Amino acid sequence: MLPGNAVLLISCPDRKGLVALISDFVYRHNGNILHADEHSDREAGLFLMRVEWELGGFDLPKEQVAPAFEPLARELDLRWELRLSDEVPKTAILASKQDHCLYDLLLRHRAGELRAELAAVISNHPACRPIAEHFGVPYLFLPITKEDKLEQEARILEELERRKVELIVLARYMQVLSDGFVGHYPNRILNIHHSFLPAFVGPKPYHQAYQRGVKLIGATAHYVTTQLDDGPIIAQDVIRISHRDSVEDLVRKGKDLEELVLARAVRAHLENRVLVYGNKTVVFD
Amino acid sequence: MLPGNAVLLISCPDRKGLVALISDFVYRHNGNILHADEHSDREAGLFLMRVEWELGGFDLPKEQVAPAFEPLARELDLRWELRLSDEVPKTAILASKQDHCLYDLLLRHRAGELRAELAAVISNHPACRPIAEHFGVPYLFLPITKEDKLEQEARILEELERRKVELIVLARYMQVLSDGFVGHYPNRILNIHHSFLPAFVGPKPYHQAYQRGVKLIGATAHYVTTQLDDGPIIAQDVIRISHRDSVEDLVRKGKDLEELVLARAVRAHLENRVLVYGNKTVVFD
Amino acid sequence: MLPGNAVLLISCPDRKGLVALISDFVYRHNGNILHADEHSDREAGLFLMRVEWELGGFDLPKEQVAPAFEPLARELDLRWELRLSDEVPKTAILASKQDHCLYDLLLRHRAGELRAELAAVISNHPACRPIAEHFGVPYLFLPITKEDKLEQEARILEELERRKVELIVLARYMQVLSDGFVGHYPNRILNIHHSFLPAFVGPKPYHQAYQRGVKLIGATAHYVTTQLDDGPIIAQDVIRISHRDSVEDLVRKGKDLEELVLARAVRAHLENRVLVYGNKTVVFD
Amino acid sequence: MLPGNAVLLISCPDRKGLVALISDFVYRHNGNILHADEHSDREAGLFLMRVEWELGGFDLPKEQVAPAFEPLARELDLRWELRLSDEVPKTAILASKQDHCLYDLLLRHRAGELRAELAAVISNHPACRPIAEHFGVPYLFLPITKEDKLEQEARILEELERRKVELIVLARYMQVLSDGFVGHYPNRILNIHHSFLPAFVGPKPYHQAYQRGVKLIGATAHYVTTQLDDGPIIAQDVIRISHRDSVEDLVRKGKDLEELVLARAVRAHLENRVLVYGNKTVVFD
Repeated sequence: MLPGNAVLLISCPDRKGLVALISDFVYRHNGNILHADEHSDREAGLFLMRVEWELGGFDLPKEQVAPAFEPLARELDLRWELRLSDEVPKTAILASKQDHCLYDLLLRHRAGELRAELAAVISNHPACRPIAEHFGVPYLFLPITKEDKLEQEARILEELERRKVELIVLARYMQVLSDGFVGHYPNRILNIHHSFLPAFVGPKPYHQAYQRGVKLIGATAHYVTTQLDDGPIIAQDVIRISHRDSVEDLVRKGKDLEELVLARAVRAHLENRVLVYGNKTVVFD
Repeated sequence: MLPGNAVLLISCPDRKGLVALISDFVYRHNGNILHADEHSDREAGLFLMRVEWELGGFDLPKEQVAPAFEPLARELDLRWELRLSDEVPKTAILASKQDHCLYDLLLRHRAGELRAELAAVISNHPACRPIAEHFGVPYLFLPITKEDKLEQEARILEELERRKVELIVLARYMQVLSDGFVGHYPNRILNIHHSFLPAFVGPKPYHQAYQRGVKLIGATAHYVTTQLDDGPIIAQDVIRISHRDSVEDLVRKGKDLEELVLARAVRAHLENRVLVYGNKTVVFD
Repeated sequence: MLPGNAVLLISCPDRKGLVALISDFVYRHNGNILHADEHSDREAGLFLMRVEWELGGFDLPKEQVAPAFEPLARELDLRWELRLSDEVPKTAILASKQDHCLYDLLLRHRAGELRAELAAVISNHPACRPIAEHFGVPYLFLPITKEDKLEQEARILEELERRKVELIVLARYMQVLSDGFVGHYPNRILNIHHSFLPAFVGPKPYHQAYQRGVKLIGATAHYVTTQLDDGPIIAQDVIRISHRDSVEDLVRKGKDLEELVLARAVRAHLENRVLVYGNKTVVFD
Repeated sequence: MLPGNAVLLISCPDRKGLVALISDFVYRHNGNILHADEHSDREAGLFLMRVEWELGGFDLPKEQVAPAFEPLARELDLRWELRLSDEVPKTAILASKQDHCLYDLLLRHRAGELRAELAAVISNHPACRPIAEHFGVPYLFLPITKEDKLEQEARILEELERRKVELIVLARYMQVLSDGFVGHYPNRILNIHHSFLPAFVGPKPYHQAYQRGVKLIGATAHYVTTQLDDGPIIAQDVIRISHRDSVEDLVRKGKDLEELVLARAVRAHLENRVLVYGNKTVVFD
């Protein structure tokens, strides 16, 4: 998603004329569509669309795009979101002790691969502070014990709200978030689980994989819901392993996979290419 | 591509309003768009689109779709093709001695994966006749020697024209087609080359791969042009090999790859998902 | 595994000198080792080895190899098997209505990829008879109802024993085998399950995958045990899917995967490259 | 390769008894073989072996292993190298402006994935100094112009020799090394080329790939020889691209691949799992 663009993400009951009517809205206001893609889930009777156009030349100022679209949206019974690529979402990364996914995200951000404003790295461990500092991102160390878990979560929430964070990325964050916390950010908390879900839900998936003797290990990026490891899947990948690989080898090989899969999902989210419906996602190319 | 549908494949210089105007044509005639996808090649200044809709409910009989679209197409300076899913293209498979790709295509056809009418299997060897017969497809044995190559090509051409063949699939056909022959079927002859092109052009790519000591071997499906192994690529894939693999192992492993990649390309072509521009393809999902 | 070779498959408690002592046995009798590979599972304290050598030049006739090895095996407390590549194992394929894996195995067998003697295709449906006949393999049609399931299994068993079958391949066979049946062929019944196990155990894994919204589907070849879909895994692979794929698309795409994964496992078994220990396998390259 | 181990890397004309005689050497001195693997290249008549054993319990001190093995090696006409895992090779990374492979190697080194002692990062650009400093590795900035290229190479050589560097990793280093330089480090200079060689040799392979319209892009890690992009290949991989990907997208997607493939090759080299013969490699698992 390039600067100066607008994206509409739309879902609605399927009916005739949706592509025509929605693209006509853009055309009528002199917009140049850069990319339009749609999907019909025939089983669910649902139409899903993503349309991206240039705001340069568009005959509405950006604050009037949504009001101008509103009547058509109401008429067609659309669930919709408008995203402007100039409004870069404030993002927080939550990490624990392991730093590989954190490093990877910070490096990609610095390389310009992720259109996010990094508001903070928040961790229950002090270990990653030097990394955050190397990249110039504020680091909040909020240790958590069994006793003060909910209190500390409340403090995290406070920090996120104060910083107007819109996206939370769990970069191998080892604490399970409470339902209350999750409820504040529906489809806004991204997690990486180190297995090809639904296989090996829960703790120590590499150990589970080793015990079961699988020939592939995987990683899954998904939105967090109140069901553990059960949210809508955004990205998944696997790599081949063999009998030669110990649990330590699986952990090492899995790290690469976790980084790649999480980054792919974060990027898709930030480019407004992910639409959630039911417990599934459409990820537009 | 389901029965009873129409597909427009369009390319033209990029300009505003194309998605809106084209989808409006379908909507205006009460068509239900099942799938619309477009691509802008910004470097080439080119817009490419595929739109598929149901003819059931469409207010034009199918023979009037093209004439009705013509004025808009002229106005917008479109290069376009209309395909009706009920018109199943007559297809010939050219094979030599090796039968794995031939078998694979015949099996997929019988399983309903390929919307083609198999007009003939044509071969310069008698070996595959029992296979064609097992699947009930006419087999033409037209042996070729250095001396009568052009004559025999002329006979093949005659047979193809008599049978109104629109698509020719070279299923490991070991004869190089003359420029004249190729010229009769622009973007209508599909070939499978057993390497990840542009590596290992020409004969014996597995031997070349073995000599070079690569760690992957590949297969490439492409349209045939007068440049050997240089036509627009439709599909490619690779598999891992190791020092343990002899040339014979490469040949064996490559067979699976050739089948999969060729079948993927044939299917994409038959579903009208391939658009050629320059020496490249867009393959719509 | 080439004709005229012998293979020893060995597992035993790990200790020093095993590679030296076992390879010395071959050398002492003037054998030329073609391939030796071993693996130590340090956690289990287990040593596993595969050694293959040429019988040409070996100073023992093939019927004396096992007796000659016996004393060393006893001394080293080996669990071992000797396989001679000239003794091609009699193999039965069990199929139901779906024929793609059956076709694939028959084609590979005819192409010389599988060193097996195909003793019979056994099915609870009449549908695949013409296929078996095309390839010249006896076809046994043994229909099964809820009432006569155990009786029919007994008949299958009888047929297998009469034909001295050593390997049973379930090529999308849709009947669950009884524990009694399975007990007759420990690590001799190969099954293909159409998911990346342990995800989507049981019936309709493609439907389960569709419901869960995964981004990859898989296939798993494993030995059948009395635990459903829980036997030692030999081979696994996956392919990418997207929101565009319906359940029918998953079924279609999965077919290719099932064929490849099952064939890879059958080939590894027939080349005596699979060693089972615990509920896992070592698959030597 | 774990601390306290020894590895023999052997190649020689194939003959009987090699596995037995070599493993017997280890056993005779009371060594515990952790891993033995061998390969016969029948076409070349060559035997290649890697054997790793624990020095704990071995009845020779490590400085006597080589002298003790010498007589057998002479008798069997072996080309061999002994590597002791306690002797960690001094390694230099050469980089230019792009930092992704450099970062990746430094992170993996810190995570304990690469058994190397990082002697220096050497660059013709000042840009990567803060990165080297963040990881505590000396940074040598040696700018290069057309005029002083050979002089500067001589200085690099001097620095490498002074630091007793045994392995040189070109982490997207944009200078072509002179034949003289390469001659100092046969099979000791590792490069990453951003294509699936032999496709797209030379500069700007992503642009070449874009022009050709391939559906996969790749990366290749190889030893540097005096032939540009033609040295023995150690590792290769590819990823899928589509018509949607611009050259910039290829560059971005390729970065991940370059990191993974280079790291895999460096790790294999450091674990003494790579044997070069002719213009090929054996990479033992």
